[in-house]
Amino acid sequence: MKPIEYADAAPEVKAVYDDIKEKRGVPDVNNFWKFIAQHPPTLARTWDSIKDVMAPGALDPLVKELLYVAVSVTNNCGYCVASHTAAARRAGMTDEMFGELIAVVGMANETNRLAVGYRVPVDRAFE
Amino acid sequence: MKPIEYADAAPEVKAVYDDIKEKRGVPDVNNFWKFIAQHPPTLARTWDSIKDVMAPGALDPLVKELLYVAVSVTNNCGYCVASHTAAARRAGMTDEMFGELIAVVGMANETNRLAVGYRVPVDRAFE
Amino acid sequence: MKPIEYADAAPEVKAVYDDIKEKRGVPDVNNFWKFIAQHPPTLARTWDSIKDVMAPGALDPLVKELLYVAVSVTNNCGYCVASHTAAARRAGMTDEMFGELIAVVGMANETNRLAVGYRVPVDRAFE
Amino acid sequence: MKPIEYADAAPEVKAVYDDIKEKRGVPDVNNFWKFIAQHPPTLARTWDSIKDVMAPGALDPLVKELLYVAVSVTNNCGYCVASHTAAARRAGMTDEMFGELIAVVGMANETNRLAVGYRVPVDRAFE
Amino acid sequence: MKPIEYADAAPEVKAVYDDIKEKRGVPDVNNFWKFIAQHPPTLARTWDSIKDVMAPGALDPLVKELLYVAVSVTNNCGYCVASHTAAARRAGMTDEMFGELIAVVGMANETNRLAVGYRVPVDRAFE
Amino acid sequence: MKPIEYADAAPEVKAVYDDIKEKRGVPDVNNFWKFIAQHPPTLARTWDSIKDVMAPGALDPLVKELLYVAVSVTNNCGYCVASHTAAARRAGMTDEMFGELIAVVGMANETNRLAVGYRVPVDRAFE
Repeated sequence: MKPIEYADAAPEVKAVYDDIKEKRGVPDVNNFWKFIAQHPPTLARTWDSIKDVMAPGALDPLVKELLYVAVSVTNNCGYCVASHTAAARRAGMTDEMFGELIAVVGMANETNRLAVGYRVPVDRAFE
Repeated sequence: MKPIEYADAAPEVKAVYDDIKEKRGVPDVNNFWKFIAQHPPTLARTWDSIKDVMAPGALDPLVKELLYVAVSVTNNCGYCVASHTAAARRAGMTDEMFGELIAVVGMANETNRLAVGYRVPVDRAFE
Repeated sequence: MKPIEYADAAPEVKAVYDDIKEKRGVPDVNNFWKFIAQHPPTLARTWDSIKDVMAPGALDPLVKELLYVAVSVTNNCGYCVASHTAAARRAGMTDEMFGELIAVVGMANETNRLAVGYRVPVDRAFE
Repeated sequence: MKPIEYADAAPEVKAVYDDIKEKRGVPDVNNFWKFIAQHPPTLARTWDSIKDVMAPGALDPLVKELLYVAVSVTNNCGYCVASHTAAARRAGMTDEMFGELIAVVGMANETNRLAVGYRVPVDRAFE
Repeated sequence: MKPIEYADAAPEVKAVYDDIKEKRGVPDVNNFWKFIAQHPPTLARTWDSIKDVMAPGALDPLVKELLYVAVSVTNNCGYCVASHTAAARRAGMTDEMFGELIAVVGMANETNRLAVGYRVPVDRAFE
Repeated sequence: MKPIEYADAAPEVKAVYDDIKEKRGVPDVNNFWKFIAQHPPTLARTWDSIKDVMAPGALDPLVKELLYVAVSVTNNCGYCVASHTAAARRAGMTDEMFGELIAVVGMANETNRLAVGYRVPVDRAFE
């Protein structure tokens, strides 16, 4: 499989690329978009959903990017860790924040397994 | 396996329970601690680590709890989702924040698989 | 879906049940076998493979059962954690061993995420 | 670890390689087989199981390859995604099918987390 | 958290429920929808995406449902396995198909780990 | 991100490196430690925990390393598989042991999914 570069893209793909570039203020889109563009409906739907989900709301954009990194690390997705770590830094993540983020993700993955291994039943208070 | 209740606990276990109760201002510890108390070194080490990792720092306690929920959902740990959702609410998570949190976790799990399925190479800018 | 009990089983299923009962010295097979018996080729193939893989070899049966628990905890498979913890106890696992097993599994799940989060490259010595 | 090439293989390994090459009509076996050949019982058992499981049956071979890709993407196994995507294409998967396959895999991974995050109880109708 | 029943739902939620009921020809929506309705934007976006992704296309609806089950089993999502197994049966999945589906999912999860454990490099032909 | 080499390390980081080198009898620490040293509290806490958890106890060090490999393979952590396979070999793992280890890990991942796919309820005897 190969990335779809802007020059070679169909109009429907170009329109999504243009919107990404404008909304993010970047000169070109990342590989992620160029690869999923092989299936234009997936490109369009994913970009629409990302715009909705990552927009500022009750949670601010930095927190949302930190959450994205936490999931990507837990799933061991190399591309996603790299790209969302970069995005989180652009949104304001400092080295110290990154250190604490990974520490929490590591502990959560550890205690998740302790809970499973000891077969801990849910406390009545949490039901 | 059975939970170790306070009355039946060895002194080293009681000491950890007492510290948890004091630091968290709760009358009793959750099932998680009562079950891992079956191996006292794990109980002591885990509580020490949790205190360090979850303390306020560059990230505030609410953000750390949101990250814990994100990992627990991705790992599909029922106990952990229930207990950390409750902890996040105590730390200030509103219904709207919870809705956005789960939306981000869902999208991240989706786009992680798109990146893997299309075998997207890491952009030079992220290396 | 419902379990296939011995009395209702087809001859090919009964033959596998008989072999499990004889090899393990148990009066009846576990739910796992009664459910996968809904697809007799899966039942037969799985039992053949389990007999091969779990037989004493360079690793003794207790170590193999501990490994089975470690994988089942990491995958968060409730049935598997319950059944293989029981199997490990029958093979000689003590409470202290179980405590150490879960501690290692927890730490490994934590450090796995640290390695992923920091994008640690493989040392030349390990290639 | 190193791959076991045909010329260097023990007779029991050569016999499996020969069967793979004949059944698949290929001049050489993939790296997967050359690496697991380091443990000949695993090589023989895995090939026997794959032949059984992937044979045409109630599901046709293309559907089985699509399922293999879906699992490999969800597990984030780079080798497996690459090799089974190639296998699925040989079995008839078009670009459009691949696009839809990855779209379904992505959505399923997303909605799986929505179900876990909201702690959705199983509907009575599904029990 | 509690499900949002139709009678208690806001108009925007009712509109989605009505569309689900009409498109699927069911008298009421599943718990999945009633729980994610706690965040109406997630409800609306998820339903729109599911309609797009699961519509007949290059892959027929039964194949798409089989893929959904394969992902749900690999992720160990109990709700999702139950609901999508039911959906697959409605779409035409027979007992024999289900048996083969689970057999493929099991083998894929096994061989994925063999590939990872032996650190198998991608064959040049698959690049 | 870049590794923190000994010469550039802060005193608190140097102290941990020195302890690792002494306890393990190695001339330099692995990349894992050099990367997590970007957050010194994580470095110190992780090394303390690893020393505790991996110390000889009811389980001997080789068994603990085998468990670490089993978890790392199941999580598909490339760095971790490479480094812990090397550690297990230093602790006495033979080729034959490795072959059996990966075979058990593969089977456990397969049967975990069979249990989930067939929705097998826990046997009363295992509760």
